[in-house]
Order: sequence, then structure tokens, then C-alpha cells
Amino acid sequence: MKTLREPFHAFAGSNRPLDRGQAGAPRTGDSPTLIDRRLVSLLKSVIGMPPVEFALWDDGGAITHARHAGSGRITFLTRRALWRTCLRPDMGFCDAYAAGEVRIDGDLIDVMTRVIRSADYSRWHEFRRRHLLWLPLPFGNSPSESRRNIAAHYDLGNDFYRMWLDPDMVYTCAYYRDGSADLATAQQMKMDHVCRKAGLTPGMEVIEAGCGWGALALYMARHYGVRVRAFNISREQTDYGRQQAHELGLQQSVEFIEDDYRNIDGRCDAFVSVGMLEHVGRDHYRELGRVIRRCLSPRGRGLIHSVGRNRISPVNGWIHRRIFPGSYTPSLREMMDIFESADLSVLDVENLRLHYARTLADWLQRFEREVPDITWRYGDYFVRAWRLYLGGCSAAFAAGNLQLFQVVFTPARNNHLPRSRAALYTDTVPDFWEA
Amino acid sequence: MKTLREPFHAFAGSNRPLDRGQAGAPRTGDSPTLIDRRLVSLLKSVIGMPPVEFALWDDGGAITHARHAGSGRITFLTRRALWRTCLRPDMGFCDAYAAGEVRIDGDLIDVMTRVIRSADYSRWHEFRRRHLLWLPLPFGNSPSESRRNIAAHYDLGNDFYRMWLDPDMVYTCAYYRDGSADLATAQQMKMDHVCRKAGLTPGMEVIEAGCGWGALALYMARHYGVRVRAFNISREQTDYGRQQAHELGLQQSVEFIEDDYRNIDGRCDAFVSVGMLEHVGRDHYRELGRVIRRCLSPRGRGLIHSVGRNRISPVNGWIHRRIFPGSYTPSLREMMDIFESADLSVLDVENLRLHYARTLADWLQRFEREVPDITWRYGDYFVRAWRLYLGGCSAAFAAGNLQLFQVVFTPARNNHLPRSRAALYTDTVPDFWEA
Repeated sequence: MKTLREPFHAFAGSNRPLDRGQAGAPRTGDSPTLIDRRLVSLLKSVIGMPPVEFALWDDGGAITHARHAGSGRITFLTRRALWRTCLRPDMGFCDAYAAGEVRIDGDLIDVMTRVIRSADYSRWHEFRRRHLLWLPLPFGNSPSESRRNIAAHYDLGNDFYRMWLDPDMVYTCAYYRDGSADLATAQQMKMDHVCRKAGLTPGMEVIEAGCGWGALALYMARHYGVRVRAFNISREQTDYGRQQAHELGLQQSVEFIEDDYRNIDGRCDAFVSVGMLEHVGRDHYRELGRVIRRCLSPRGRGLIHSVGRNRISPVNGWIHRRIFPGSYTPSLREMMDIFESADLSVLDVENLRLHYARTLADWLQRFEREVPDITWRYGDYFVRAWRLYLGGCSAAFAAGNLQLFQVVFTPARNNHLPRSRAALYTDTVPDFWEA
Repeated sequence: MKTLREPFHAFAGSNRPLDRGQAGAPRTGDSPTLIDRRLVSLLKSVIGMPPVEFALWDDGGAITHARHAGSGRITFLTRRALWRTCLRPDMGFCDAYAAGEVRIDGDLIDVMTRVIRSADYSRWHEFRRRHLLWLPLPFGNSPSESRRNIAAHYDLGNDFYRMWLDPDMVYTCAYYRDGSADLATAQQMKMDHVCRKAGLTPGMEVIEAGCGWGALALYMARHYGVRVRAFNISREQTDYGRQQAHELGLQQSVEFIEDDYRNIDGRCDAFVSVGMLEHVGRDHYRELGRVIRRCLSPRGRGLIHSVGRNRISPVNGWIHRRIFPGSYTPSLREMMDIFESADLSVLDVENLRLHYARTLADWLQRFEREVPDITWRYGDYFVRAWRLYLGGCSAAFAAGNLQLFQVVFTPARNNHLPRSRAALYTDTVPDFWEA
């Protein structure tokens, strides 16, 4: 087993955690002053008065503008946590939480959903949107930067992800087609939905860009009889995929290639990319479009599945710096850069936002069960950071702050198209306009 | 019966037809010169060498760079037609065709599809896209301009449209869910598809913006038990809708209102607009977004159905001037102006382009059957112009030059959403995320 602490240093970027050693222990000995109380009132007001309690380190003196029974409470355990949150609400708050200087009582996802809903329509958000959108993001996405960014998150160790992902190791939004589906079933349902949308039939050549641990590539080959070339720049994931293909006897039909999407070449009948676009970076969409254009056959279909936004908004600094370096979540308008320049026609867009809220909630639940083990391996700071990442993202999807778009597209002149989307939902054979 | 020639003068705008009296009769007595032949070669090359024959008025000397058996032929019957086409390919060619100075042999839609496919990827198109996109369009869309624009097309006389539309008088893209459906069935299928997408249930309040002759409004009330307020600025259409509501005994549930979409007010559970956006004009999308935002209830859903483009492209000047004054066909990127500014979340986009190709082909076929009658009422020029409009638009959809987008959206915080789109395709009751 490789050292597991190392990757986290990369994952945390150049910013050191606030307080690694004494996490959880309030450092502020003195009682909150009037200024502290004023500050917390100001903070609440700036983020739009979310219906949750705010408390300070003396705990007894919960500052509430209105009591909301059962709505949870956020307690600043140190003065530093309060001030940092006020100075940069997203970075400061999340760093302080990870450092154990903020405590959230009540259901984490529920509390965060309330805060995000409120903050999203606040003066602070409007200010960021108007004045900070032009700021360059600290992490770029050149091929070498991409490698570093991806390694920082995805090379944390397969064992870690195995602890709380589904058995197929699918690390993207699941599809709870029926409400009673569990995580593993919903991931299978998602893979099937993607295969149907891409119009896979036996013998097709498929390119997958950004294949994670290879679950979808293997699923496509196994259940739809296609040949897949699956690209990924994470070494740990590629190795894992190859091993799985070997175990399943699918080496002949699935080839895992450790390479950047920019280097993808050769023809395919379907181009599938699930959960990679977030790492492509907004300056590289046209490049991705060109790659798709040169690979996709005239009658081929493609699918891009990505986290998105309702409109262009500043990225969450903490996610961009600490969790997914270099990540960017585009609006549909921005995603059009991929298709317009490459003369591709959008056939179908589906927003699966609430499916991701539930996927992340399921992940968090499984993560919580493994906390003793994860703490032993990675430490408290890591556990709190990941708890906030999984719970906070679930909340962002539930609050309508993040979207999940599946976009199906085809070369502009292709008339070999199904008459309707019925075959996604029924076991009928699709009926095509042109044979 | 009102005078039927009058509206056509409005429809033709301020531009007089090239040659109204002597349509069909070649006016050029002399034989084509070397310059004429060079010009037609140049034209073919500029529009990307479409696989059709080009001929001049002496007819015997068909100029072909390659013979394409059965691919049709375009003959310039006058020198003026040739020169005007070369100077402004879309305006000049279409005006000359309407004036009877251009003849198209072979299947009109097929020939036009070949020409459009070729022209779309030609140097000329690229030149227009790069240099003419900034040009202001000749027709605006203020409330008063909109009234004039709409009257010019839709007030041509209900009798005229009754001759070749389906019995319900639906003048938008049909939905041929199964291949054997005829026009009337496909229009019913479209209306049902829209109702399902909008999530209609009995008792809901629905606003329809741009209701045509009222077919959809009446369908929604009749089959889904909703109350509809249907807006339209065409007097002839509004009157017709009211009369239909009366005949069907639906006066209590469908109210036809002769007013501009900008004046729509009051709450609704669903906001539906089918085939109006093309007439809104690109400068008014945010305004439409604001109207939707103030009307749509927090758990409501909306649907906009519109002709679109894969990317921003110059409008077809002839359609914009002669057929639909003030019309504009947006790209998905441009449509986002409606949703982003109004804090609406896109749930579903479906591209029905080939359904519109077939709808227009069906309309053209029915139109051709009525040509003697229509010629008697409106004259040759009108018949040729409408033949070119219906056939040319069918070709533009078939060639992938035009798209038909149905966009479903909802207020950004609404979590009362179906888990999947299965209920659009099966007779199951939708299963919602939040009750």
C-alpha cells in the first residue's frame, strides 16, 4: 500500500490547513465581545438571513434573529473562524470547519441547504457575481496542470474510494429512476441510461473521455457489446480499470489508455464523457469540441454528463482550491462552446440535479460509517473536509445552486436519429428517421 | 369574406415583387453569354458546389460541373434572376423564384436540401457569419411593430390556412411519435407531449403565450382539465379561438386574450409558449424571462417550443423580410437569455428538427392540392412564394440548418420535480422527488 497521507498534501494545494494539530479545540479563551456578536449579525444579514441558528464559542449565547425549531445550528468555536468567515465566506467558513473551528449541529445537508439557498440570493452572491467573475482562477488546465489537478483528487488511494462508493466504483451522479433504488442499483441505472442515450448497438466503437475506475467502459462492453477505448490521466484509476477488465475477461473489448483527452484520436460511433467536463476548464471547451469532431463518425452520437450552473457564477473557492483543483462548473450557455464551434447539434439535455443531491447524500452516509477507519488513515482534518465536501455539494444540488446536465449531441447533418426518446424508457427498439 | 389580396401586400413588406404580371415568362430574349456562364459557375462555387444541375434560359445548355442523376435542376429563366441571385444569394434567389424567373425541376424539398447543405458549409455562409452578423435586422419587435409583423402573416385569412393545415389548425411543428402517424395525429401527439412535459394536472392555471388559432389551449382544457388564459396579438386568430371555445363548450375554461406577451400578468402553474419565440426578437428575451418569472408559481413548470439554430447565424433575409417580418431563430446559447436572467432552471431540451421537416413537407403536399384555389384567390406570385417558403423550410430542417427546440424549465429552487421523464413515454403517473 502506498503512503496515504501524501496525496492529501497535494489535494490541499499550497494552502495549509488552518489548524491541523488542535482541531476541534476552541482556541479562544475569552468570551465573545459585542463586536463578535455584531459581526455574526452582519454575516447573517450579508448571506441573506438563512433560517438556521448562529452561535459563538460561549455556546450559551446563541445569536438568532428568529428561532427555527429543528433547523440546526452553526457554532463558531474560535474568533479566528468567525473573522475568516466574514472576510471570505466560502473559503474562510469551509477551512474553519475542516480545522474543527466551526461546528454544525443538526442534519449537515439540511443546514447547508438552508444556508446555500439563502446565500445564493443574497447581496454577497450578487456582489461576487458582478465584481469577481473576471478574476482568473488559481488553477489552470494545461495538460501538465491537469495531471497534477487530477492526481490530487483521484489518486488519494483506491482503497479510500472503495470504502464508500458503490461496488462498481462509480464516482459520478447516479440515476434513481425509481425512488426505492439503492446507490448500487442507481449507478447501474445511470450507466444504462447513458448507453441508451448514446444509442449503443453491438460492434460499435466507443471512446470514453475521463473514465474514472472504468465502470462505465466495462458496463458498455459487457451489456451493449461495444468496443471501448477509455481515456484517463489518473494512473491509479487506469491501473484499476485494466485489472477489472482482466478479471472480467474484457481485455479484448475495453482498452484503458492513460492519456489526456486532447490526444484522443481515431474514429468512434459514440463519444461518451461522464464527469470529466468539470475538470476541462472553461478555456478548453472549444478544444474538446474539436477532439469530438475529429473522432465522431457522421452518424455517431455523443454524450457529455457534467455538473453545471443555471448561469455563469463564481466558482466556490474552497472546492476549486481544496477539493477539485482546477475544476469549473459551466452554465449551459458556456457548454455551447463545445458544440457550436464543432458543428455539433444538441439533441437532448436532461437536468438530473436532484439525483446528484441524493447520490452525494448516499455517499456521505456510507462515508460516515467508515469514519473511524478514514480518521486513522488520513486524520481528523481530512474527515471534516470530506464531510463538508460531500454534504455541502449534496446541499448545493438540493438548493438548486448546482445542476447536473446530460447533453446528447450529433454531427449537424446526421439524420440517422430516433423519432422519439421512448426507447430510453421502454423496451422498444428505437425507430429511426433515416435507416 | 374580407378582401384576401390586401394582407399579402402587407406580408410582402415594402419590397415589391420582382415581376408580378408576367411571372413564368422569361424576359431575356438573347442567349446566355460567356459572362452569364462564368457567373453561374462562380455562384456554384461560392455556395459550395451543391450536387444539383444549374441551367440558364436557353435550357439546352445546362451548366453542370458533375452530372447528378435525378438530383434536380435549377434554371435561371432571366439574366436578372441570375445577377440578383449572385448579388444576394438568399434574397435574390427567393425573390426571383417567387417572380417565376427561376424554375426548380425535381423534388423541390430534395433540391433545396442539397443546396442548403452545401451553402451552409460554403465560403459565402462563412463570410456572412463573420461579417454580417452585426447588421441590424430591418424589422423590430416593439409592441406596435410586433402587431404589424404578426398581422402580416397570421391575418392572411383563416380560410387560407384551413385549406392545408390539419383540422385543429395547428401551425407549429408536429410530433410524429410513430412513423405512420398522419399530420392530424402528429399534431395531437405534439399537443399531448407538450401537456405531459408541462406536467399538467386537473385544476391547474395555465398561461399560453402566442396561442395561434387556439388548438393547444383547447386541447389542454379538454384533455387535462386545466384553466387556460391564451394570449395572442393576431385578431383573426383570437376571434377564431373564441369561436372554437364556444362551439366546444369550453368558454369557462379557456379565455382568449388579444394582448402582447409583455402584458401577461397573474399567477399560473404552467407557462406554455409554442411557436411564439421566433417572433419575440433577440433583444426581448430577457423581457420574456421577466414575464415568465412574475407569472410562474414556485412549483410551476414552463415550456418554450421554438425554431432554433446550432449556433448564431445570420437570418435568412427573404424569410425575415417577405414571410415572417421581424422573425429571428436563436441558438440555444441565445435562448439562455430568457432563463438565466429570470433565475429559471432548464430541466429538459429536446430537438425535434426532423419532425418539422416532415410537418412542412406534409403542409406543402396539402398546399399543392389546393393550388388552383389559392392561385385564384392570391395569384401566382403568392403561390410560388409560399411553395418556396414551405419547401425551403422543410429542406432547412432536413439539412440540419434549422433546429426545433422544446425547452422545459422551472424556478431554480423548485424541488417538486419528477424523478424521470418516463411519464412522457409510458402511462405511468410521474413519481416526484418532493411531494
